[in-house]
Amino acid sequence: MKAVIPYKKAGAKSRLSPVLSLEEREELVELMLNQVIDTLKEAGIETIDILSPSMYGLENMTKATVILDRNDLNEALNLYLEQAEEPVMIVMADLPLLSPDHVKGIISTEGDVCIVPGKGGGTNVLFIKNPSDYRVRYYGSSFLTHCSIAEEAGQNVEIYDSFLAGIDIDEPEDLVELLIHGSGASKEYISKKFRLEISRGRVRLAPI
Amino acid sequence: MKAVIPYKKAGAKSRLSPVLSLEEREELVELMLNQVIDTLKEAGIETIDILSPSMYGLENMTKATVILDRNDLNEALNLYLEQAEEPVMIVMADLPLLSPDHVKGIISTEGDVCIVPGKGGGTNVLFIKNPSDYRVRYYGSSFLTHCSIAEEAGQNVEIYDSFLAGIDIDEPEDLVELLIHGSGASKEYISKKFRLEISRGRVRLAPI
Repeated sequence: MKAVIPYKKAGAKSRLSPVLSLEEREELVELMLNQVIDTLKEAGIETIDILSPSMYGLENMTKATVILDRNDLNEALNLYLEQAEEPVMIVMADLPLLSPDHVKGIISTEGDVCIVPGKGGGTNVLFIKNPSDYRVRYYGSSFLTHCSIAEEAGQNVEIYDSFLAGIDIDEPEDLVELLIHGSGASKEYISKKFRLEISRGRVRLAPI
Repeated sequence: MKAVIPYKKAGAKSRLSPVLSLEEREELVELMLNQVIDTLKEAGIETIDILSPSMYGLENMTKATVILDRNDLNEALNLYLEQAEEPVMIVMADLPLLSPDHVKGIISTEGDVCIVPGKGGGTNVLFIKNPSDYRVRYYGSSFLTHCSIAEEAGQNVEIYDSFLAGIDIDEPEDLVELLIHGSGASKEYISKKFRLEISRGRVRLAPI
């Protein structure tokens, strides 16, 4: 099996712009990418590809193979799946709470397809045993879409139910989860800029 | 062991008021309470208590024992724990995605305390093996607080990592999760009022 991480550094994570500058957001996505790669390696995955529309920020990447594809995310991934000759795990680059145990757990599922749901109907990890028989459609409610695509292709789906692997970092409130439940470089980076504050019984980010 | 569900129907779930009327919110919390009780029963828990400051909405409750306590949530729960002579599982009433398998999984954890985290630092389920040696403090970042309280008491903590059990229904975006991942009466209730709509690549509620 192999893993592929879609990645785009330039102008990343615009929904974090209320709390982080462009430069900070680009630094954060790079830290998260490296954390995800390390997690996959620690779980024993040897072949890791990064699928990116640009070399920006990947000039010195040595831990994984960079595949350049200027098509949109879905087109690029579907071409990748078409050519794959082994099971493929598609892992989003913004999952700093994903652990090697999660990855091993996902690998050991028995369904044809394993989906790790993210909030708002997202797909955080998609493990596809027979990639040449499957196509992805990210954006929107991709969780439901990916379930339907599997069903239409006669492939059964297993849900990998994890709070931590379910947290993708898109919005300021996700940084709260990173500070509470996270570890590693991206948590350190954010904890130098923000602390947790309790306001009206709820936890919020407060600048340091 | 036994389970206790803190519950208050009157004026419930004010953060859902942008999308549901008071009457609808009160109906929804009642449906969710019943779903949680059924889940606990299905998991084999025989003693289920509802801890409430008022009998409102519980007049005809036959599936669980109602304990009236007009103190605030933490005081009422801590009195309950003090008097308990067996392990106690505190289960929030707004977890319609909690399944019997989750409950069985939580029961079978080996730590002194098991916490199911909710978003924003919340504690969705708290399973306490030695309740007379433990005190709760809900509100704010209760997840971190409950970890610290255990640590200070020399009790070890196990995190039960579940996306589905981690979803408590507080805000409109949580209803999106209920529509995508839920089942049972509360999902049916919400799916008669809202459908999912994709807007700018994100999933939102749209009134029917």
